[in-house]
Amino acid sequence: ARRHKIAVIPGDGIGKETTPEGLRVLEAAGRRFGFELDLTHHDWSCELYQKTGRMMPEDGLDQLRGADSIFLGAVGWPGVPDHVSLWGLLIPMRRDFDQYISLRPCRLMPGVRSPLADRRPEDIDFVVVRENTEGEYSSSGGRMFRGTPREFVSQESVFTRHGCDRVMKYAFELAMKRPRRKVTSATKSNGITFTMPFWDERFAEMAKNYPGVETDQFHIDILCAHFVQHPDWFDVVVGSNLFGDILSDLGPAVAGSIGIAPSANINPERAHPSMFEPVHGSAPDIAGKGVANPIAQIWSGALMLEHLGEAEAAGAITTAIEQLLAEGGPRTRDLGGNAGTVEVGQALAEAV
Amino acid sequence: ARRHKIAVIPGDGIGKETTPEGLRVLEAAGRRFGFELDLTHHDWSCELYQKTGRMMPEDGLDQLRGADSIFLGAVGWPGVPDHVSLWGLLIPMRRDFDQYISLRPCRLMPGVRSPLADRRPEDIDFVVVRENTEGEYSSSGGRMFRGTPREFVSQESVFTRHGCDRVMKYAFELAMKRPRRKVTSATKSNGITFTMPFWDERFAEMAKNYPGVETDQFHIDILCAHFVQHPDWFDVVVGSNLFGDILSDLGPAVAGSIGIAPSANINPERAHPSMFEPVHGSAPDIAGKGVANPIAQIWSGALMLEHLGEAEAAGAITTAIEQLLAEGGPRTRDLGGNAGTVEVGQALAEAV
Ligand SMILES: CC(C)[C@H](C(=O)O)[C@@H](O)C(=O)O
Ligand SMILES: CC(C)[C@H](C(=O)O)[C@@H](O)C(=O)O
Repeated sequence: ARRHKIAVIPGDGIGKETTPEGLRVLEAAGRRFGFELDLTHHDWSCELYQKTGRMMPEDGLDQLRGADSIFLGAVGWPGVPDHVSLWGLLIPMRRDFDQYISLRPCRLMPGVRSPLADRRPEDIDFVVVRENTEGEYSSSGGRMFRGTPREFVSQESVFTRHGCDRVMKYAFELAMKRPRRKVTSATKSNGITFTMPFWDERFAEMAKNYPGVETDQFHIDILCAHFVQHPDWFDVVVGSNLFGDILSDLGPAVAGSIGIAPSANINPERAHPSMFEPVHGSAPDIAGKGVANPIAQIWSGALMLEHLGEAEAAGAITTAIEQLLAEGGPRTRDLGGNAGTVEVGQALAEAV
Repeated sequence: ARRHKIAVIPGDGIGKETTPEGLRVLEAAGRRFGFELDLTHHDWSCELYQKTGRMMPEDGLDQLRGADSIFLGAVGWPGVPDHVSLWGLLIPMRRDFDQYISLRPCRLMPGVRSPLADRRPEDIDFVVVRENTEGEYSSSGGRMFRGTPREFVSQESVFTRHGCDRVMKYAFELAMKRPRRKVTSATKSNGITFTMPFWDERFAEMAKNYPGVETDQFHIDILCAHFVQHPDWFDVVVGSNLFGDILSDLGPAVAGSIGIAPSANINPERAHPSMFEPVHGSAPDIAGKGVANPIAQIWSGALMLEHLGEAEAAGAITTAIEQLLAEGGPRTRDLGGNAGTVEVGQALAEAV
């Protein structure tokens, strides 16, 4: 049988409850489609930080290097500052493993209520492709005149040709596989006048290689407005690290799926392991109660299988999710039901 | 009678049609409330640029310096690149006149359809206060290795204590005048780790001076999602130049008012003239047809009167707009009617 080496990091809060359900469904898919998972569990988390002063061991990244993929729950806990929990675990994985694509599908699922009036599933079905390693999330910046009235901070955004081209190429290739074949670029070249015009140049250049793909571009301000007013305009949307971050929360929000949205952090060349995680966080308010919705985690598992070449199994999982939502299967509180995390996981595992 | 010196710049496209209606209503208000307007008209525009190579004369800013306020239509026309039209007219006014507050009310007006399901006017009534002179719109940046695979661009965001404190102070003072007394800060300190933590520090510091004002803060990604899911959470929202820009398009979008939303670019100390303009652009597709909606322009006029100390007149104009929308007065196409620009302007002038 095919074997896939998966590093599992449940992390904090509800991550510890959703990851087991994700694995339950992945293993069910393995039994049906003939592959096996070699799992390695890591307790890296804010809890570990509180005990040891580190989110992961010093050789943490090295321990992950041999894995085919990383399956992550959620990171973050009250009392541990973001710059510790995120920059001590999440961001180093994205950077060191050159996971330069962050992929977030935004779909109005049948049976889920969108906050938008009169929208049906066929109106909202797009993917945000976010650059995940450079741009506005830079490590170059500083502060001067600290503590005085002249105090200021600065931070540099950096966009390389290499970085722009590869994320745009990915977006176009993805569009070629989708029926609409359209790519929208998020820009702000009218206001941010050194970096964003370059982004536009690279987008125009890449578009030349894909004459069969329709393109357009919008400034991020009006693009956010269009997500609300015309979500049906979009197919593949490509954005910088910051703009992609914004759009990939706004997209699931308009689709009513922020609690169930999955995400993939991909190194397409497979030179390093890719990472799969829900869009939602560790949700301290409901953690430990067994009521968290595991769908985002399970859906992230489907994205992982797709990346691992198990497209059929991935399709079976997303179909199971669609059917559970459409046909009134067990639902957690956030979707108006009263099922527990495990119940939803079991239902999906059976369906697969 | 009180006199106010107003520099009028209709600009391009529908700006030439909406500004006269704005003035019509302002003058009606003057007759009723006892003030006079000294108007100076300027034909600065993309049209002028195409004739002379400049968006405004070399001493343009000096010509404006004596005005109490600037009443702007819209700037931009196909064939003239943004960096010419915006950076040759709009941005220099904001910068040189230190209009460090951009103010954009977001209200669901009675009689207007929000794209959100089941929202009523009392659910959406907040103001975005945007820093308008520094932050991500900087003039510091560059490009290296042009035309080679190593090519990259960079741009520096700069946040000063002076710049943060004054926009935050304005937001808190504004909240003190509103019934809910709440300020929300837009941040991204978990990802943009040099500048945004400083923004958070300054916000926390300023909040100490206003113990009667409730505060919260969200990262910009989830904040955009909340605008869609929970617009009723917000009262005054303060953001950087870029985040404020995004939120002040998204806010009117969720309120269904992107075509009627006003904006103010304010120098609160009145050391320089402030500028008032609609959020919408020059709309080349409908320009010259007499069908543009003048409400954004007229509402911007109300913000101008408020700034000039004519609060009563300002109130009369916004009430007239509310009533026209609620009571089925004449409407332009974008609101589902078939009235022309002039007809709506006349109706509002009469109502005032
Ligand atoms: C035209 C552009 C530079 C401008 C901005 O981003 O400031 C516009 O979007 C606005 O909000 O006034
Ligand atoms: C937690 C934070 C740094 C992160 C980001 O902005 O990248 C998150 O918002 C995300 O989208 O994964």
